[in-house]
Amino acid sequence: MAVGLSAPVGLLPVAGVRLGATAAGIRTGTGKGGEADLALLEIAPGSTVAAVFTRNAFCAAPVILARRHLARCAPRYFLVNAGNANAGTGEAGLADARACCEAVATAANCPVEAVLPFSTGVIGERLPVDEMRAAIPGLVAGLAPDGWAQAARAIMTTDTVPKGCSRRITVDGRDVTLTGIAKGSGMICPDMATMLAFIATDAAAAPDFLQQCLHRAVARSFNCITVDGDTSTNDACVLAATGAGEAPPLDQASSSGAAAFEAALTDLCVALAQAIVRDGEGATRFITVEVCGGRDEAECRQVAYTVAHSPLVKTACFAGDPNWGRILAAVGRAGLEGLEVGGIDIFLDGVCIVRGGARAPEYTEAQGVAAMAGEEIRIRIDLGRGQAQGQVWTCDLSCDYVRINAEYRT
Amino acid sequence: MAVGLSAPVGLLPVAGVRLGATAAGIRTGTGKGGEADLALLEIAPGSTVAAVFTRNAFCAAPVILARRHLARCAPRYFLVNAGNANAGTGEAGLADARACCEAVATAANCPVEAVLPFSTGVIGERLPVDEMRAAIPGLVAGLAPDGWAQAARAIMTTDTVPKGCSRRITVDGRDVTLTGIAKGSGMICPDMATMLAFIATDAAAAPDFLQQCLHRAVARSFNCITVDGDTSTNDACVLAATGAGEAPPLDQASSSGAAAFEAALTDLCVALAQAIVRDGEGATRFITVEVCGGRDEAECRQVAYTVAHSPLVKTACFAGDPNWGRILAAVGRAGLEGLEVGGIDIFLDGVCIVRGGARAPEYTEAQGVAAMAGEEIRIRIDLGRGQAQGQVWTCDLSCDYVRINAEYRT
Repeated sequence: MAVGLSAPVGLLPVAGVRLGATAAGIRTGTGKGGEADLALLEIAPGSTVAAVFTRNAFCAAPVILARRHLARCAPRYFLVNAGNANAGTGEAGLADARACCEAVATAANCPVEAVLPFSTGVIGERLPVDEMRAAIPGLVAGLAPDGWAQAARAIMTTDTVPKGCSRRITVDGRDVTLTGIAKGSGMICPDMATMLAFIATDAAAAPDFLQQCLHRAVARSFNCITVDGDTSTNDACVLAATGAGEAPPLDQASSSGAAAFEAALTDLCVALAQAIVRDGEGATRFITVEVCGGRDEAECRQVAYTVAHSPLVKTACFAGDPNWGRILAAVGRAGLEGLEVGGIDIFLDGVCIVRGGARAPEYTEAQGVAAMAGEEIRIRIDLGRGQAQGQVWTCDLSCDYVRINAEYRT
Repeated sequence: MAVGLSAPVGLLPVAGVRLGATAAGIRTGTGKGGEADLALLEIAPGSTVAAVFTRNAFCAAPVILARRHLARCAPRYFLVNAGNANAGTGEAGLADARACCEAVATAANCPVEAVLPFSTGVIGERLPVDEMRAAIPGLVAGLAPDGWAQAARAIMTTDTVPKGCSRRITVDGRDVTLTGIAKGSGMICPDMATMLAFIATDAAAAPDFLQQCLHRAVARSFNCITVDGDTSTNDACVLAATGAGEAPPLDQASSSGAAAFEAALTDLCVALAQAIVRDGEGATRFITVEVCGGRDEAECRQVAYTVAHSPLVKTACFAGDPNWGRILAAVGRAGLEGLEVGGIDIFLDGVCIVRGGARAPEYTEAQGVAAMAGEEIRIRIDLGRGQAQGQVWTCDLSCDYVRINAEYRT
């Protein structure tokens, strides 16, 4: 199902990080019983952590608890389960999440606040805490530096392919490694982390620098994707810098190393974000919506999101139908003040299909069909009233999206 | 396919109105060749007309021309074609629309500005003007007071059922009749007329009164529906008051008659608006989303629309799955400042499924499944922070929605 995406190979271990995964029986009843569904990521003492969380007003219990723990203590463990979101579970859900963190703290001999919980899956069901507690000691004992691929697989829900990637850069002649994993396929929407992602680096970095780097990288990656416009209650993206590598510490002052690190982090986040869209529920095509010629980036993104969210544009992409009228109609309802249709040009790949708000005179339907024949579609919209640009990545809307979401939970 | 909707019977003629329809060959190539696709509605001299149009920034040529004509002259004819939206057609599209209006003006011996054009269908194709001009004299000659049902059928595009209804009230002891027809099934979205609707009454009414009545009625009907969140470039709702009946003129001063008229108009608009949703593309269920306990109506509608637009909620409704977590997640991302999950109650019909932001203790899955078993689903959300309320009508998202929109135009 995933568009131009296969399971990651050669994920690089990161000094100071160990991972593991196990089947704790959380997926029971989802048709995925017996598969790994609980992952643990350990980071070395002295690591720095940055995190961004969902902006959905109704955070899930693990998000609330992870934020509290982060405020009190330097994290050592990320406990991640699939199959159950522990959302809409009230006080009981908070107690459940805390009980799981306590089990890790006991097995690993650390404060409970050093454990951050993360959950995705069905909303509104209680976590199977007893099963999870039973599985945790073995999980802690089995942690290993090369556990990335195993962990990437254990955190999948409706994902069909595990998602991860690595980058290696050189700072002051020393290697810096970044490796990240992510999950997400449905309930994917902009304006927040919109999925779970865990990224680690062996660089040493000050907390403020790390948080700013992560914010900027997320703005250019995870916050540029949408599958269905629905925003999860459980999203989080976490970046840990262990400092266990050999490169000198990164901060805003050490400009060249910091810039190289931020570029590599952004690049890695873009790869993970695109992987989520490529594995979007029911996706058969990967769509890039580029908007240029806007007055500012915000209005370009507003138009790009309106087009990327349009069910009519998404079904036309599914059909490989160069239905530029649906794109034009979506641009027109994006809410931009004073937008003139006469200034709009639209391109499919290199083919100009709309010029000055109407069908381009030289355009032929055959060109449009050819531009939409592949698995990768690029829609470029020129608003013709400024110099700013912005882009969004999305996927098509297929019958399988409906089938997956109608059958999920049943 | 339409949910609880059949073709209208017994549409009441309105004194001062005649209608007709014909097959002009506009649908050729859409698989509906040979079916009526051009309708004409005539209103008596001296009638008053009110209209609301799409707020999509990129109006279609007929919308632009209808607005211009309305500003210059009292309308006598509404010329409506299906199968071709004459949108995204630039100056050529304006000339085409005007040529069709001229053909009506010649055959009916009236100024061209007394003819208002309306088009829906495929975007970006030129109108078959020659075929339409050839059909118009016969159309004018065949106008009749009982042509409502025929016209309702001729303006359908992806509609599966024609839509129309009548209301009769008594003002000062005299009958006042209202009859309206509408079309719309996809590209249906809030915040404007979102489809074509033509309503006529034999009441006499001052223009300002009529326009205000229509605005308020549309706000409580057509602007409360969504099928897919996509807003057409061609929407319009037109109300004509011929004054050919026997009731005394309506205006804001004659309060009881005016109030009764506005109530009947709103009731008729609600029936037409709900008919559009019931015949939503691929719809298998009709969904009412009621939001109460808000600080003002605007925030209630904002939440209702977010829920009604959520593909995850809509696919759960398609599956008959009481997946309240998806509803709760949609409420949480609706963007309301300071909304507390602990104050949220959610009901399916009479069944409380969420209380205080978590699964209601007494709720059983069997109750939820029963509440979603029928073709009509009522979701009620209490925000728990005020006295205001608002509601939206929508339909589910089925595999057929995707199939219809992937196949349309191909």
